[in-house]
Amino acid sequence: MTDTRLAIGLDIGGTKIAGAVVDEHGTVVAEHVEPTPAESSGEAVTEVLLSMIERFRADHDVVTIGVGAAGIVEWPAGVMLWAPNNAYRDWPVREQLEKATTLPVIVDNDANVAALAEAHLGEPYPNMVLITVGTGIGGGLVLDGQIYRGPTGLGAELGHIILNPDGPRCGCGNHGCFEAYASGTALTRMARDAAADDPDGLIARLGAEDGEVTGHTVVKAVQQGDETAKAVFARLGRWLGVGIASLANIFEVNAVVVGGGLVETGELLLAPARAAAREYAYAPTARGIAPVLPATFGADAGKIGAALLALEHV
Amino acid sequence: MTDTRLAIGLDIGGTKIAGAVVDEHGTVVAEHVEPTPAESSGEAVTEVLLSMIERFRADHDVVTIGVGAAGIVEWPAGVMLWAPNNAYRDWPVREQLEKATTLPVIVDNDANVAALAEAHLGEPYPNMVLITVGTGIGGGLVLDGQIYRGPTGLGAELGHIILNPDGPRCGCGNHGCFEAYASGTALTRMARDAAADDPDGLIARLGAEDGEVTGHTVVKAVQQGDETAKAVFARLGRWLGVGIASLANIFEVNAVVVGGGLVETGELLLAPARAAAREYAYAPTARGIAPVLPATFGADAGKIGAALLALEHV
Repeated sequence: MTDTRLAIGLDIGGTKIAGAVVDEHGTVVAEHVEPTPAESSGEAVTEVLLSMIERFRADHDVVTIGVGAAGIVEWPAGVMLWAPNNAYRDWPVREQLEKATTLPVIVDNDANVAALAEAHLGEPYPNMVLITVGTGIGGGLVLDGQIYRGPTGLGAELGHIILNPDGPRCGCGNHGCFEAYASGTALTRMARDAAADDPDGLIARLGAEDGEVTGHTVVKAVQQGDETAKAVFARLGRWLGVGIASLANIFEVNAVVVGGGLVETGELLLAPARAAAREYAYAPTARGIAPVLPATFGADAGKIGAALLALEHV
Repeated sequence: MTDTRLAIGLDIGGTKIAGAVVDEHGTVVAEHVEPTPAESSGEAVTEVLLSMIERFRADHDVVTIGVGAAGIVEWPAGVMLWAPNNAYRDWPVREQLEKATTLPVIVDNDANVAALAEAHLGEPYPNMVLITVGTGIGGGLVLDGQIYRGPTGLGAELGHIILNPDGPRCGCGNHGCFEAYASGTALTRMARDAAADDPDGLIARLGAEDGEVTGHTVVKAVQQGDETAKAVFARLGRWLGVGIASLANIFEVNAVVVGGGLVETGELLLAPARAAAREYAYAPTARGIAPVLPATFGADAGKIGAALLALEHV
């Protein structure tokens, strides 16, 4: 048993909703995951969140709830204004959860809370870029020791820098965003292209067995030594590294930290990313090259950071 | 005559060195400009700076000197480490000028000082991106009211975000930087390409008269109504807008301010930049679109900001 206060941390992504009961040291006491509802409206997601909260509260005495959500969150009002990969719009998350649970609730962008977890519990870099690679790409910025949110909390949208204005369409509607090149969505697109190019190849065959080709198909194919699948990851990782370089060139950061679901693929993604980040680093002899590190909490940084943020505010 | 203390502000670019005597209100009392020496070593540039300082001091009682220099400046040591478009390396500007003049000297990146001038004397935007478009592209970041310099002053290098990893080579050695697409250097490259494509066209003919095709050739050709020249500016401006969008998408800024020598071409550059910045804005319905404005002090922001920074430090 833990002797500190407990919070529920909820991390809402484009594919799944991860929840945990977390103590003040960032220790996960209980956890649970649900798929993001296909109809990802505020109403549908609220229902999942409330059932997860109820389940956690049956066993744990929590004092507050923190939510990190993919998309543009008005701070500190906790209104989810818009998201590229989910349908929710102008969704008053904070108000709805506070009313239903009678607990204090805090809501922030998913990558901001992941950055908070990494900054407080990981290596304390005063200047750090955090990138979460999941369905989309989220960004958290720690500048001079502080999380940068922008005037109303809509800042640090690192996934939507432009890596090629003539590039593929992004979930946000633009073309050639970082997210369109180096996210889970991009991996799925590359995998489907590879399957279409080679219908007898392993990716296409594994996809046929599973009913559809997804990012997971490529991971499985890599595990079986498939060269095409390795090349897909090398390309995805290279784009990740170009985006990382672009961001590192701006800030003079101490480190670039990569979290989100895809970081679980480890060096498969990070090795080519690191190579490209070095290749595109600005003035490396004068500025050095910021290390590219997996998040200390891996894909868990979001739910842990959401809980820590909530505990900071009660 | 002015009743405030006076400083000399020096702005070292890739093409010219602009100097001024400036009072505490940012008023320019005297000014002078010299070409950047072809051999742009620290030694050669120091010689130009000292002769300019001597000339100013003959007529004005200045108390301090501020220098804004294109490149990577260690803060607050005032050592110019490296620059993409000038040859100086590991040049102890501050130490050399203090020794020769016996005045206090402060040295910062040219775009940082321009951002300071705009933030203090222009519209006071708490979150602002400043881009100086000259030989290269410089960047200044005002975040939550403060100039962001990075841990050792090497931050805010906005000209070296990557707009296309397969793009043209940049002065910094990388490929496809913002600076390689939307600077004076890029304008010259586009102009030379246009002249080569159409040797009987106006750009080629004006270039032949002047001895070489430069950015100025395109400006002259536009003034004579040349469609090719207009198309070159439209392309340059579009790239400027893509870079602006990329940066604005990160920060949630109140404004993007454009300074540097090329801003003197006005709407020729800014109209297509604004159009592209709107086209590539992330989530415009939720976040709005930051206005793209010419610097209040135009191409003078650098020397004025350098003087103001110096006056702040004595």
